[in-house]
Parts: sequence; structure tokens; C-alpha cells
Amino acid sequence: MAQPTPHIDLRDYIRDIPDFPKPGIMFKDITPLLKHPDAFNATVERLAAPFEGERALKVAAIESRGFIFGAAVAQRLGAGFVPIRKPGKLPWKTHRSEYALEYGTDALEIHDDAVGPGERVVVIDDVLATGGTACAAGELVRRLGADILAYSIVIELTFLNGREKLGGTPVNVAVHY
Amino acid sequence: MAQPTPHIDLRDYIRDIPDFPKPGIMFKDITPLLKHPDAFNATVERLAAPFEGERALKVAAIESRGFIFGAAVAQRLGAGFVPIRKPGKLPWKTHRSEYALEYGTDALEIHDDAVGPGERVVVIDDVLATGGTACAAGELVRRLGADILAYSIVIELTFLNGREKLGGTPVNVAVHY
Repeated sequence: MAQPTPHIDLRDYIRDIPDFPKPGIMFKDITPLLKHPDAFNATVERLAAPFEGERALKVAAIESRGFIFGAAVAQRLGAGFVPIRKPGKLPWKTHRSEYALEYGTDALEIHDDAVGPGERVVVIDDVLATGGTACAAGELVRRLGADILAYSIVIELTFLNGREKLGGTPVNVAVHY
Repeated sequence: MAQPTPHIDLRDYIRDIPDFPKPGIMFKDITPLLKHPDAFNATVERLAAPFEGERALKVAAIESRGFIFGAAVAQRLGAGFVPIRKPGKLPWKTHRSEYALEYGTDALEIHDDAVGPGERVVVIDDVLATGGTACAAGELVRRLGADILAYSIVIELTFLNGREKLGGTPVNVAVHY
């Protein structure tokens, strides 16, 4: 069972990859963090801390890197886990929310029975950039009648102001840039 | 923190979806299992049980549903987590292993620094069907010099004999069909 960890600067375990996935983008590679047990555990601890002791909670996470952190947080909190996925991946009845990209649009889907009215949900993802993905995920959860307690995000790129798109919903962050 | 759970028949939380992702395939939908905390926890417990108390272990998981179970198992065991992904998703130096599909081929990638010589790895995925994916993932781990302690799989479709492709490596399974 995971134990509390001493203070760790998570940025020591996040690697900058220039021009990925396309020219001009500096990608934050979290794989060094994942493979170091203390760093991974400290991240999960920070993502989960505000919600320790909450009951009847669900953790919804956004494909694919969000799944890694979301599942670990759900395990830590003893919560159920809800996947929010790219179109066509979920096999049952789904709801869809589209969001704008720099060029064009993308979309996310959630199962119709993933959460219900009055349930309390924490939405987890690896990066908060412009906020489009988090906003679309939140819209899906709310469309099913559930409440979003907070977003809990590994990395916030604060200079992109994504938080402004989230309408005042609390945002818990493990590392700021 | 997750607590031990009473015996649960995980099949009660796995939904059959006919003709997904294509006609003639009966898809095992594990989203009902994920959203029920006791069922999710019991699954993670079964996946992790043989490795409790093992030290210096890494958990490698296969994109995307494997990430959910792999990350929860890593959190439970206090182990590091290694993602094995579809081509083009990992941002740094990768190794690639191709495997045969019914028509054509697919491939998986791992980061060059994900595991090292002598490390002990548990490989996690959601389904063991024909074994092609698990075999390719195992090959990647071994190419980096690490040892595979076991595969730990949520659902084994025993009639497909995927286990035979895994060369005698131990396979721990949460649910058989």
C-alpha cells in the first residue's frame, strides 16, 4: 500500500520535449514521473488530497494520460472510476461534447449511465492548457445531472488561462508552469 | 484508502455488447465494473495480489484500458508505472514491436528509458484474447533488458488460447470466460 512521501519537486520528473506533437509545441513528458514510485505517489497524493474522506464520490478521467492519474486517485480514495473518451471508443449509449482546437474541432464522449443526478464527481486530466478539453468533459458530467466538485489536474500551464473557461469550478493542481 | 472487499462476482459488472467494435464481435464492457468502487477495488486487488510485498517492481500497462488497471495496481503496490502505447504517442526515444491482426498489423511502443536491465516488471492489460498485444508488450520490456515477472490481466477469453503465445510466462487473471 502506498505510503505518504516526503516533499518532492515534481518538476524534476517532468521532461521538456520540444516540437512534440508538432513544431513550436514544448511537450511536458510525464513518463519519468510515472516510473519513479515516490514521484508518482506524491502526484496522486496531491491530486487526491482535497477529497480524502469524501463519500459517494466518482472520479472521471479523460483519455489517455488522464486515465493513469484518475485510476490511481480512484484507487486511493476508494471511489468509482468513469472514463471520458474520444469518439467511437465507448461501446454503449454515449453523450458527446465537441470543443474547438486551434484548427477544427475535437470531441469527447461519456456513457449515458456513467454518473447520475446528484452524484459528486472529480474530473482528472494530465494537463490544463487552453481549457477546452476540461470544459467539454465537465459539460458531459453535468449533462447527466451530476455535480463537479472540482477539477484535479497534474500540470497547469497558467499562461494559457484555461482556468477561465471552467466557470469558477474549483481547480486543484499538482504542478504549475 | 481502499479497503479489502468481500467476494464479488466480477462478471456481474461486465456488460456484453454485441457487434462492437465490428460485426460478429461480443465486446466485454468493463465500465460498469469501473464505476462501482467495490468491484473496481476487488479487481485491482486480484490483479495485484500475487505481487504484494515485492520490491523494486514496475507495472507496465497497455494503452488505453490497460492504463486504468495498471495505474491502480501501481498505486496499490507502491510501484512505478510504465505506459506502453500505440505508435506516435510517446514523445521521446522509443522501441517498437509489431504484431499481427486478423487483417494487417498493429504496433506498440515503449520509451527507451522506461525500464532497465534486471528490473522486474508486471505487464497489465484489460483483455487477453489471441495474445498478440500481450506478446508484443512483453517483447518490448525484454528488449530493454528487464524481466517479466508475470502478466496480470482483467479478462481472459480462454477459448482463444492467447496464453500459448506467452512462452510460459505466468499469467494472473481476475475473470475467465
